[in-house]
Amino acid sequence: MSESLRELSAQRSFGGWHRRYGHRSGTLDCDMELAVYLPPAAEHGPVPALWWLSGLTCTDENFMQKAGAHRLAAELGLAIVCPDTSPRGTDLPGEHDSWDFGSGAGFYVNASREPWSAHYRMFDYVTRELPSLLEAALPLNGVRSISGHSMGGHGALICALKRPELYRSVSAFAPIANPSACPWGDKAFSAYLGEDRETWKAWDACELIRSQGCDFALLVDQGDADNFLHDGQLRPEALEAACEDARVELTLRRQPGYDHSYFFIASFIDEHLRFHGRQLSR
Amino acid sequence: MSESLRELSAQRSFGGWHRRYGHRSGTLDCDMELAVYLPPAAEHGPVPALWWLSGLTCTDENFMQKAGAHRLAAELGLAIVCPDTSPRGTDLPGEHDSWDFGSGAGFYVNASREPWSAHYRMFDYVTRELPSLLEAALPLNGVRSISGHSMGGHGALICALKRPELYRSVSAFAPIANPSACPWGDKAFSAYLGEDRETWKAWDACELIRSQGCDFALLVDQGDADNFLHDGQLRPEALEAACEDARVELTLRRQPGYDHSYFFIASFIDEHLRFHGRQLSR
Repeated sequence: MSESLRELSAQRSFGGWHRRYGHRSGTLDCDMELAVYLPPAAEHGPVPALWWLSGLTCTDENFMQKAGAHRLAAELGLAIVCPDTSPRGTDLPGEHDSWDFGSGAGFYVNASREPWSAHYRMFDYVTRELPSLLEAALPLNGVRSISGHSMGGHGALICALKRPELYRSVSAFAPIANPSACPWGDKAFSAYLGEDRETWKAWDACELIRSQGCDFALLVDQGDADNFLHDGQLRPEALEAACEDARVELTLRRQPGYDHSYFFIASFIDEHLRFHGRQLSR
Repeated sequence: MSESLRELSAQRSFGGWHRRYGHRSGTLDCDMELAVYLPPAAEHGPVPALWWLSGLTCTDENFMQKAGAHRLAAELGLAIVCPDTSPRGTDLPGEHDSWDFGSGAGFYVNASREPWSAHYRMFDYVTRELPSLLEAALPLNGVRSISGHSMGGHGALICALKRPELYRSVSAFAPIANPSACPWGDKAFSAYLGEDRETWKAWDACELIRSQGCDFALLVDQGDADNFLHDGQLRPEALEAACEDARVELTLRRQPGYDHSYFFIASFIDEHLRFHGRQLSR
């Protein structure tokens, strides 16, 4: 293992290992924690990985504990990488005051406004620093797909749209699909990126799809009893319109009766794992 | 629904429903909460149920969120019932001071010593009051199996041993198999039952098996990297000896490298669900 990656715990799960690590992030200028699930196949050689970006208030632990994803990842021979959702251990003004902004809410952007720009560079962290660090230290073969939930669904979409060469496939659960046009995104982008809304377009999946298209076939699940859908935070209709205009293949499944919780994610994670597994193993 | 059962939330999961309820327990003389998973089959008629008893510090939520059990329960047409682990909302002397005693640690016994005897009657609660209440109000057909983890594995074993007519099958994960002879049990039984250790035998799976035998074939999983195993809290070797002496069929599987966590439970819950499903559906 790299000297810079410190193992915090290791737990057997479905014949593989759930391992948590700590490290000093140069990109974020703070200490970070993360989790990796290594399937049994990783004992025989490097394996591909599904990167999972979590939503508001989450850490690396939510998906690992609640999604029920280890079972099929073990069977398919896929690793799962769960980064945290923001820089930690910093103490910027107002950073810990809201559950939808600051700590736990990095929005996977590179902040350009002070004081956030000194730490809140989650996009570079998850697309550059972490892949390099983990693939050098762990049995990961550098073949990646990416998915996520809510804020992390937004994160997965913009990572794949802005760095398509890094991923084989992308999917999302109830993503914040159009953050420039919803209250959560408005609050976060104003602070992290500033008031010039033109600069927001580079971090909004709908805007990116309209401006540059997308070669991925997108898979998105959205519960139709999701209270944040009804509050206008998620805007799958905007994603649908952008994909239609840009002729991007989108499978948007409105799942009847499902809410925003991990019960929703667990119910459909196997289909996402198989979707990614087909691309990761080819 | 019974007037006495108040629905707190309902969430779609694997085509069925995860529902949480509140009610006033006459047995425990306090307000309680619990959770039920109803599989899709429950929309067409009453279904059998696996009762799950959780361990120290848990509530009804841990198993539902972390075990990954809904997927196969939905497929097999089994409900899951998760009671809480102790009376709640009371404020007895010392009740909330330790994580291994009092609230969150009812040990599924009927306490005989004051002040605990006024509320801590979890055995009657899970074997009498709750089955009557839930089976009158929900699409449950009264056919039951029981399982649990750690303190709840102890609970599952004593429920099945003391009231075999209520269950079709019983299993356990890392149960406190011999509470009369471990620090956790010693602390809890001294307070709930008093210093006369003879009275403890009626609440100890090993003692019950030796005194009365057992017609169930027992399935027990135990991780061999479980720190509580090494601390002498679980004592599967005592269960093994009791079953051998009483000629009880015990399948005790020592799972290499697994610890005491929900990753261990999730890794083997499908096998327990199939084990119970065979008995519940016959």
